[in-house]
Amino acid sequence: MTRTTSTTDHWRTLVARKREQLDAQIPSEWRLPQKFLAAVPANGRLIDADVIRGSGILSDLELDITQNYSAGELLVNLSKGVISSVEVTTAFCKRAAIAQQLTSCLTEHFFQRAIERAQFLDDYFQREKKPLGPLHGLPISIKDSFCVEGIPSTVGYVSFMEKGPASHNSAIVDMLLNLGAVLYVKTNIPQTMMTGDSDNNIFGRTLNPHNIHLTAGGSSGGEGALVAFRGSILGIGTDIAGSIRIPSLCCGVYGFKPTIDRIPWGGQVADLAMEGIPGLKPSAGPLAHTLDDLELFMSTILNAEPWKYDCTASAAPWYPQPSGDQPRQLTIGVLPESKDFPLHPPVKRTLQTAITALQQKGHRVLQLPEDPALDIAYANRLAFQYFIYGPHIDHIASSGEPPVPSVAKMSSPMFTGPFPVSMDLPPFETIDALHVARQGYADAWRKTWVENSLDVLLAPGAQNTAVPHDTFGWPPYTLVWNLLDYPACIIPYGKASQQLDYDPMAVTDGVQPSYDPDAVDGAPCAIQVIAPRFQDEKCLAAARIIDRDIQ
Amino acid sequence: MTRTTSTTDHWRTLVARKREQLDAQIPSEWRLPQKFLAAVPANGRLIDADVIRGSGILSDLELDITQNYSAGELLVNLSKGVISSVEVTTAFCKRAAIAQQLTSCLTEHFFQRAIERAQFLDDYFQREKKPLGPLHGLPISIKDSFCVEGIPSTVGYVSFMEKGPASHNSAIVDMLLNLGAVLYVKTNIPQTMMTGDSDNNIFGRTLNPHNIHLTAGGSSGGEGALVAFRGSILGIGTDIAGSIRIPSLCCGVYGFKPTIDRIPWGGQVADLAMEGIPGLKPSAGPLAHTLDDLELFMSTILNAEPWKYDCTASAAPWYPQPSGDQPRQLTIGVLPESKDFPLHPPVKRTLQTAITALQQKGHRVLQLPEDPALDIAYANRLAFQYFIYGPHIDHIASSGEPPVPSVAKMSSPMFTGPFPVSMDLPPFETIDALHVARQGYADAWRKTWVENSLDVLLAPGAQNTAVPHDTFGWPPYTLVWNLLDYPACIIPYGKASQQLDYDPMAVTDGVQPSYDPDAVDGAPCAIQVIAPRFQDEKCLAAARIIDRDIQ
Repeated sequence: MTRTTSTTDHWRTLVARKREQLDAQIPSEWRLPQKFLAAVPANGRLIDADVIRGSGILSDLELDITQNYSAGELLVNLSKGVISSVEVTTAFCKRAAIAQQLTSCLTEHFFQRAIERAQFLDDYFQREKKPLGPLHGLPISIKDSFCVEGIPSTVGYVSFMEKGPASHNSAIVDMLLNLGAVLYVKTNIPQTMMTGDSDNNIFGRTLNPHNIHLTAGGSSGGEGALVAFRGSILGIGTDIAGSIRIPSLCCGVYGFKPTIDRIPWGGQVADLAMEGIPGLKPSAGPLAHTLDDLELFMSTILNAEPWKYDCTASAAPWYPQPSGDQPRQLTIGVLPESKDFPLHPPVKRTLQTAITALQQKGHRVLQLPEDPALDIAYANRLAFQYFIYGPHIDHIASSGEPPVPSVAKMSSPMFTGPFPVSMDLPPFETIDALHVARQGYADAWRKTWVENSLDVLLAPGAQNTAVPHDTFGWPPYTLVWNLLDYPACIIPYGKASQQLDYDPMAVTDGVQPSYDPDAVDGAPCAIQVIAPRFQDEKCLAAARIIDRDIQ
Repeated sequence: MTRTTSTTDHWRTLVARKREQLDAQIPSEWRLPQKFLAAVPANGRLIDADVIRGSGILSDLELDITQNYSAGELLVNLSKGVISSVEVTTAFCKRAAIAQQLTSCLTEHFFQRAIERAQFLDDYFQREKKPLGPLHGLPISIKDSFCVEGIPSTVGYVSFMEKGPASHNSAIVDMLLNLGAVLYVKTNIPQTMMTGDSDNNIFGRTLNPHNIHLTAGGSSGGEGALVAFRGSILGIGTDIAGSIRIPSLCCGVYGFKPTIDRIPWGGQVADLAMEGIPGLKPSAGPLAHTLDDLELFMSTILNAEPWKYDCTASAAPWYPQPSGDQPRQLTIGVLPESKDFPLHPPVKRTLQTAITALQQKGHRVLQLPEDPALDIAYANRLAFQYFIYGPHIDHIASSGEPPVPSVAKMSSPMFTGPFPVSMDLPPFETIDALHVARQGYADAWRKTWVENSLDVLLAPGAQNTAVPHDTFGWPPYTLVWNLLDYPACIIPYGKASQQLDYDPMAVTDGVQPSYDPDAVDGAPCAIQVIAPRFQDEKCLAAARIIDRDIQ
């Protein structure tokens, strides 16, 4: 009893010290006065209220830099010396510091180190009269689960604090640095990285800058909030069930989950799972404000030979989709709404608006019929069975920290029906039976794709928009594409509207959120564009056409 | 006791009937007279003796078609209507029928069906004034493990005979047919498909047409023998330990093992293994007479969207290596000879000749130092541990057939040292530990590649050339690249010579063959060119430069 109490005290002490250290790294002139914090709008709509401008902390140039350019446009200016990396980096550091104070979107931040790096790049440019690489001088934010030498990677587990700073860079971090990028922040995630609420006992809860009463999504929720606030122009998340796409749709930004191992995964925080056990594998990918920037990230990384940094990365380069090759008229399948996961009214309305717009532009839009062979509830149960089978390590209990609310109430596995595979099989037979089930499901999708000559599939990204904290539930509309390893892109599209979507909708399965028109009014909506495995190029090229034709 | 005898009798009866049926499918005018068979040279060198011409069965035109063109050249003529598919198909059917009578290189053959298909293609060409696809009219041979609707796929197991004809095509077979190819034969394999001797109780033993006293290699030994005899201009094998490359090097033809799942694997003979269990995975690839034809096969299949036929096939297309992009001067690493697997004198001599020629042409050739982190004996033990862990099914005993000699004496696992992973771990921990060991080994190779700026690696394909039957042993120089999933190409180069390689060499490990200058005199030699995973394009482009510069 005494020992437990003592452990409990100990973790609280560790966390308090950690938070103090991090807060102290924000220069005083970048700190928001208590008065300012107390005066944020009661409706929580920080972006609508333009609180960053209102803080008076950013200069007009810094507001311009952070608000009026895509990553690609900034890179053009950086590569021509029109603007310096120190200017760009300082602007984003300041904006990220403000975002952090308002939404707890960061874990580690290292602004000083970032500005020194920017100075190094500016000096290089002065000396060599050319950029160091295609990402010269651009600040890029990364999820906490990537390792940066000298910076801790706790992924929100108190028990990981004792590991101390990372002794290596993740492969993608090495690539970003070699390509000329500036790293300045790592971003917040949920305890376990497996819920839709980026909340943990070390770094607290990330709030949604569109409405702080709503979740920013998870697990790359810090990225979603930071990019939405334009505290980052390009962020990198990871996705094993929707962890790039859910924050993207919650926070109204573009997000892309690539095919596994195209973006190198090597050197991520270790000890989270037994990586050799067959299951779903996570994929790293970008969050940004434009499709151009998603593609910029993908093409830049893939053309820089990821295999040289990570033996697990596939060496297939980014193959450009020649504009003439990409049909202006797409054949777009529409995923049927699952009766197990009915869509909230704003999600349904905006999806339908997009479909109508696409039809009006002459695209061939096929509403796929309900088909038991393609059932997403089945796919989700299979994915959850992959998640729960085999050995697992509890990283929470060992430090004495409690589970956060979203973890405590997490419902796993999914209970929409029986498990696809008997739970009584011995290990090897279980693995094989899961594999056979997954292949069968993948083959059904292959046939559907071929028989309908689909270019891409259009689907919601979730049943719901961002919802009040700790109510997100399962990720059925994203997880299915992880099971299949299909690349998938989130395009922000429209907003929830009390006026247009006035009927509440009760979801009574005890896990998924109900629709409350008041609570989510103004929350971003989004659509999801999906292509078969390894067709990342086609997915983004089609998403670009769709994005253009629905706006 | 009675029951065993009865089962034994039963399998013999089944096999005798099967052989009769197959023999009856060879038209009488294509049969070699007993007198002719009795007169083949005692030294067994069928190709040197030009026995196919000597049989008088092929017309001059048929000899020309089968001897004087690459697959690419035949396709050009077929696509212009210069020659008909019936002419080409008949020529290769006749030549394959003779090869079969001399070397038992076939399993199933269906000449009549092939000629009907060729007639269909000729009619199509007449009617449409264009070829049906890029492989229009070309006969292509396939290993027995591919399924063709209506044709049995026993892979040499008597117990599989009761399955009857296949009810579906393998994905690659569907592709070949849609691209316009003609199928005419399936080719012989070892019982178990895991030895270097293509010998089984149904179809007998494949002999090497360069010297029938030597093995044709395995497991795609029928392909090796048939292609060497020019009974096929382009064959498809599979390779999980060397099964494309070993027959290629034994039979003096070009062979390529691609990265896994680039050539679609779906719909192969089922029930051979639990496919979901982590391990080495086989790869399908071509055997041919030129590097152009290997690349023709790869680019044609990969640009025909294999993912539409097989949900496991990666959708990355073949990306051409622009001639300007491919350096004329390569950086070529040379794998050090393993002390566990010393090279036979002709293998060593021809490899050294190739190295000298490459240096003289100005290539940067780096002899890699011995490095425990890259030890191929370790890699082979790890690969063998993958082969033996987990559940296995015995397909031999159930029919009453005995193991063939090479299977009976097969030494598994490899005993050059301890297992990399404890054999006492529970299943999930075993899987994870094997994975960690494999990743570590792969990472060591990645570092070597990057630190030395290697384009490709040059290595022997085996310690030995083709050796007397049932003495092949382990495949250490090929299996290592399966463990790493690196694409690898065999280039035939030189011949074993009693005069030049006169010293016998005793290998005393009890498994690997000794070198007998008399026995292997005249046997083909070969080199192997290897590139990192997914760099199939670069592997073949570099192999082409190497092939040009060593000849």
